[in-house]
Amino acid sequence: MTKSYIPNWLKQRVFLTPSRVALYAEDTSLSFSELYEKVIDRCNRLTSIQLQEESYVGVLINNTKEAVIILHSLQQLGITAVLLNHRLTPIEMGFQISDIGMNTILYDQEFESKMNELKNVTPRLRMISFDSIDHLPLANRFIPKERFEMDATCSIMYTSGTTGRPKGVQQTFGNHWWSAMGSVLNLGLTEKDEWLCAVPLFHISGYSILMRSVLYGMPIRLYKKFDEKKVNQDILAGSGTIMSVVSSMLHRLIDDLDSIQYPDSFRCMLLGGGPAPKPLLEECIEFNIPVYQTYGMTETASQIVTLPPEYSISKLGSAGKPLFPCEIEIWDKRKKLSPFEEGEIVVRGENVTQGYYNREEANKENFVDGWFLTGDIGFMDEEGFLFVKDRRSDLIISGGENVYPAEIEEVLLGHPLVKEAGVTGIESERWGQIPVACVVISKEIKSEELIAYSREKLAGYKVPRQIYFVDSLPRNASNKLLRRELRKWIDK
Amino acid sequence: MTKSYIPNWLKQRVFLTPSRVALYAEDTSLSFSELYEKVIDRCNRLTSIQLQEESYVGVLINNTKEAVIILHSLQQLGITAVLLNHRLTPIEMGFQISDIGMNTILYDQEFESKMNELKNVTPRLRMISFDSIDHLPLANRFIPKERFEMDATCSIMYTSGTTGRPKGVQQTFGNHWWSAMGSVLNLGLTEKDEWLCAVPLFHISGYSILMRSVLYGMPIRLYKKFDEKKVNQDILAGSGTIMSVVSSMLHRLIDDLDSIQYPDSFRCMLLGGGPAPKPLLEECIEFNIPVYQTYGMTETASQIVTLPPEYSISKLGSAGKPLFPCEIEIWDKRKKLSPFEEGEIVVRGENVTQGYYNREEANKENFVDGWFLTGDIGFMDEEGFLFVKDRRSDLIISGGENVYPAEIEEVLLGHPLVKEAGVTGIESERWGQIPVACVVISKEIKSEELIAYSREKLAGYKVPRQIYFVDSLPRNASNKLLRRELRKWIDK
Repeated sequence: MTKSYIPNWLKQRVFLTPSRVALYAEDTSLSFSELYEKVIDRCNRLTSIQLQEESYVGVLINNTKEAVIILHSLQQLGITAVLLNHRLTPIEMGFQISDIGMNTILYDQEFESKMNELKNVTPRLRMISFDSIDHLPLANRFIPKERFEMDATCSIMYTSGTTGRPKGVQQTFGNHWWSAMGSVLNLGLTEKDEWLCAVPLFHISGYSILMRSVLYGMPIRLYKKFDEKKVNQDILAGSGTIMSVVSSMLHRLIDDLDSIQYPDSFRCMLLGGGPAPKPLLEECIEFNIPVYQTYGMTETASQIVTLPPEYSISKLGSAGKPLFPCEIEIWDKRKKLSPFEEGEIVVRGENVTQGYYNREEANKENFVDGWFLTGDIGFMDEEGFLFVKDRRSDLIISGGENVYPAEIEEVLLGHPLVKEAGVTGIESERWGQIPVACVVISKEIKSEELIAYSREKLAGYKVPRQIYFVDSLPRNASNKLLRRELRKWIDK
Repeated sequence: MTKSYIPNWLKQRVFLTPSRVALYAEDTSLSFSELYEKVIDRCNRLTSIQLQEESYVGVLINNTKEAVIILHSLQQLGITAVLLNHRLTPIEMGFQISDIGMNTILYDQEFESKMNELKNVTPRLRMISFDSIDHLPLANRFIPKERFEMDATCSIMYTSGTTGRPKGVQQTFGNHWWSAMGSVLNLGLTEKDEWLCAVPLFHISGYSILMRSVLYGMPIRLYKKFDEKKVNQDILAGSGTIMSVVSSMLHRLIDDLDSIQYPDSFRCMLLGGGPAPKPLLEECIEFNIPVYQTYGMTETASQIVTLPPEYSISKLGSAGKPLFPCEIEIWDKRKKLSPFEEGEIVVRGENVTQGYYNREEANKENFVDGWFLTGDIGFMDEEGFLFVKDRRSDLIISGGENVYPAEIEEVLLGHPLVKEAGVTGIESERWGQIPVACVVISKEIKSEELIAYSREKLAGYKVPRQIYFVDSLPRNASNKLLRRELRKWIDK
């Protein structure tokens, strides 16, 4: 076995098609050669402060042109980018920083005040704003690599999974490459393709678009924040052929449409974050929006299962079939189940992470014979279409963000008056789902107080919107919290 | 380093898109599930005679539906297919058979008489006609693999290279996979794609189309032999979006066209076997034929460099730039040269063979630091466009077949009256090039006699069309034959 390599993909892209547009953002565009020039400039400046000697560097970004440049610069420098979610609290961020043991963070100056707060938590962290990079001296010593090693870790993104403590998902260059190949074999590729990106670049949904852009030689149209009016305006004007969304975004796009249909040039609405309801899919048909539902996670470097539009009604509720290089099975106690039997969804493929950073125990539990045990529950029908019944740890997906009940419960349990806590998601028209909590308390306390307490420790989207005070929580014989039951209680 | 795998690609394709057309051939069509059913039938029959215990099996095929089925069956059985060129003489075929040490050959019954001749050369070889496979009992014991190992050898094709003795190029599943990925990133992929295959399936040009079909979920339209009228008729009727050709085929297609243009649905004429002359390219523009010139070889599992149509005139004579996963350099004595300096073309990428079968010496010579030394001579311009000046060993490309002068010279030198022999190619309107020989003889002999002698030992397309009797051959100081000089002599 020899190591596998791919040419340094940005360098190769610039060599092959220098003048193609790489990026539309902030009312300007950058060709691949212009992008590369800026990337090499940043690399030269960052080597003046020996950044290339770091193995892991945190990045705190928004969806900006400079973020794209910095993410590529880290690939060029051979540094693993640790993508931080800017909605996290300083405590949450601090955990990830110390978990990796990183020394340096590069941040967009719009997060200056967040950085000031973070200083209290991580006083020794070197913080470098994007603005200040411009003022670093040009070292001009930087020589880009000829090739990327497939097995080298390109990026790390945190996810919680089956326990409340977040884990760093290591994504290799190979994982990103294979993900992009699986996608192209499924969706095809034309010279007119342009991918609209209004999902965060620090999530795999956005980061994977950035990779596809380079590998396919395809422009990204990047939105700083999702604005249904602006996106519709662009699509109706013929810009964009593919877009990644979650259902709350799709709702807003359709609500904004009135009676105008999407043009035929728009060929794929890639919908993640859980199956879409029938009325939404019917509306999409009406508005000429071809919806590809998908199932994927940070550990699979983006989509791993997709449902093409022709099946959206006949296979309602299904996430589809795996991408070409990927496999899916349903297991119970490490045994493969038959069609329609419900069990754990396990996945395999070169796009699947090789493991969590520094989590030997979790890696042992979650990886078996090359299969990754997702913790999600589902079944396959007789044709092999996947139906996802429950996300792992009763995952709540709120506006495209993953919210893990266990993480919120841990925070609530940290309050001196809370004896037991159970968190679940309830339906929300705007966000898909929002988290709510049931608590058993030892002494009376107002729900506002508990919410305020949570807000100090948790990103806003994770803070429970309502607190229900109960006498006990539903548990099974081995005392395991039954969050599904919780949901039923609240619905009553 | 763990081993890399891909799902069993035919099985996966059938699982994902069972009803898509896989093949149009002999006035019928086969969907992927129909194709797979036939493949599994053949596997079940072939296991009744323990074929799966063989590591290497020869195949002698024409471009037929059954050949496609058999080639897939060998992949399913985990047997390396050794693709024999049916134009070879029994002696040439016998060499390849004993070189591999194979026990069994599967052959199309149309080559029955060829097989009878071959029996004299390889009396112990088990010969199984496609027809007779149908009469084998159904073992029904065959269980298809879940995955293919990327590093396992899928196919072997013989090529001569720098010495006259043919060498078996080992092509892994990974080589074919990466080749197909490189191609899709260059040419794109749409639902309407259909690849016309009138090049031999036993050559990499045809075999690679078969692989793309499965990986992309795209139909092949297979022609038993190239017939310009039939192909034009199909293309003008809207069938086929991509076609692989050599220039002699392209000439014939254009000559047949009169004044009708190709429809816009036809989006790529992939032209191999050397750069096209300007008048031909101009005619292609006139007839709305988008020509992608390519450079590739058996060792790179098909094209590795391509020139898109927009450059065909401005970069006249160039083969283009590498496919995305591939790299090219120009070397002299293992040192990289600068633009416009002529040297040996070296290539690198996961599509490149890991080596020749059982040729330690040649492998040591031809593979350096992951680079494959092609033996071809060329240069790159300042933008990185490759210009191929001379094919290795003065390779002659005649009607898409590789003809190695050294191989013909060896045969001529075997004649008792021939003291020296030098072979080169001359222009031919129909074939691109044809081989001719210059010989130094010890006693008078007629050229017809030498031609007849060659015909016994060489495939028809390799037999020199003319013999020139000379007093001496042009050689350099170290007595190496200068075949380029030979060409100049003959032109006079």
